[in-house]
Amino acid sequence: MKIVIVGATGTIGKKVTAALEKGNEIIRVGSKSGDIQADMTSPDSVKKMFEKIGKFDALVSTTGSGHFGPLREMTLENFRKGIDSKLLGQINLVLTGQHYINPNGSFTLTSGILSEDPIINGVNLSTVNAGLNAFVLAASIELKNDVRINVVSPGVVEDSRELHPAFPGHIPVPMDKVVAGYIKSVYGGLTGQVIKVF
Amino acid sequence: MKIVIVGATGTIGKKVTAALEKGNEIIRVGSKSGDIQADMTSPDSVKKMFEKIGKFDALVSTTGSGHFGPLREMTLENFRKGIDSKLLGQINLVLTGQHYINPNGSFTLTSGILSEDPIINGVNLSTVNAGLNAFVLAASIELKNDVRINVVSPGVVEDSRELHPAFPGHIPVPMDKVVAGYIKSVYGGLTGQVIKVF
Repeated sequence: MKIVIVGATGTIGKKVTAALEKGNEIIRVGSKSGDIQADMTSPDSVKKMFEKIGKFDALVSTTGSGHFGPLREMTLENFRKGIDSKLLGQINLVLTGQHYINPNGSFTLTSGILSEDPIINGVNLSTVNAGLNAFVLAASIELKNDVRINVVSPGVVEDSRELHPAFPGHIPVPMDKVVAGYIKSVYGGLTGQVIKVF
Repeated sequence: MKIVIVGATGTIGKKVTAALEKGNEIIRVGSKSGDIQADMTSPDSVKKMFEKIGKFDALVSTTGSGHFGPLREMTLENFRKGIDSKLLGQINLVLTGQHYINPNGSFTLTSGILSEDPIINGVNLSTVNAGLNAFVLAASIELKNDVRINVVSPGVVEDSRELHPAFPGHIPVPMDKVVAGYIKSVYGGLTGQVIKVF
């Protein structure tokens, strides 16, 4: 398979890339690193990226960030940061990528546990993650040519040690368990699913 | 109680307003109608609105629109329309309104069934509605002074007859059942809840 991995050098992305490398052609996309650079939040940049890549079989996105901070001090501009990056950035990959993906291909996005198990300072990412979960549910009933779409929703992951204090009582998820979620989406038959890894 | 109703002249808003009028001071806010005009998507406009209103006890929002259309033809700009209006517009009311609401006050927003029961052409509103549901869950653990926040998630409502054909197999919800959801949020003790009316 020809697999596009957006965010291939991130904490999750590099482990997913390592797991998918064997037997596949991998195209690593990053904002500053990888085989191809692209700005997920720009329709033009993402279109150019797909023009360079050509047809592909699977796209895995492990990219995008949100705003952490107290609700009391949050402005709409703070809030928009996560919306533009993790929510609309990943949606942009699908809106544009649907015109380049091969029949029977798949999209796999990344959300996270905060959609349903919130933490203090996490209201932006709760919103973003829940939006992504519903997006794949709704997009799955419209994608053509048996193209599938899922989202992996991990808990706070073991390798993101700097985040652990912000998630009191959350049990960090082993990386191999998280990677398995992406493997299930890419090689399996699921569509419209939130693959919860927590 | 002093109750701010944003979207007071809309299909749902006018029935909610009628139900809350008795015994309360109602401030109707609309984009073009009502006692006060405000653009929900603008932090400046919303701040001016709250400055005019002063302290209040409850805010009910029944406003904001999304983009309906085929995923196949959807652009990021189409998608952003619903994000800016129904999602960020309502979130803007809370981010700013939290600094004006009285202790023990409440916010009640509006999402909808598409978060979990998608229709063809509805991917934007699925995303927006799910984001709103998670926003109130997360915001409820940070709001101070016993301020509550809930969201009413109605199915397609009886009075929106023009929408019924887009919702095959959905049973339109009676308006009094929808209004009851808002009453439950404003007068009850719930917080962080998605009040499903479908």
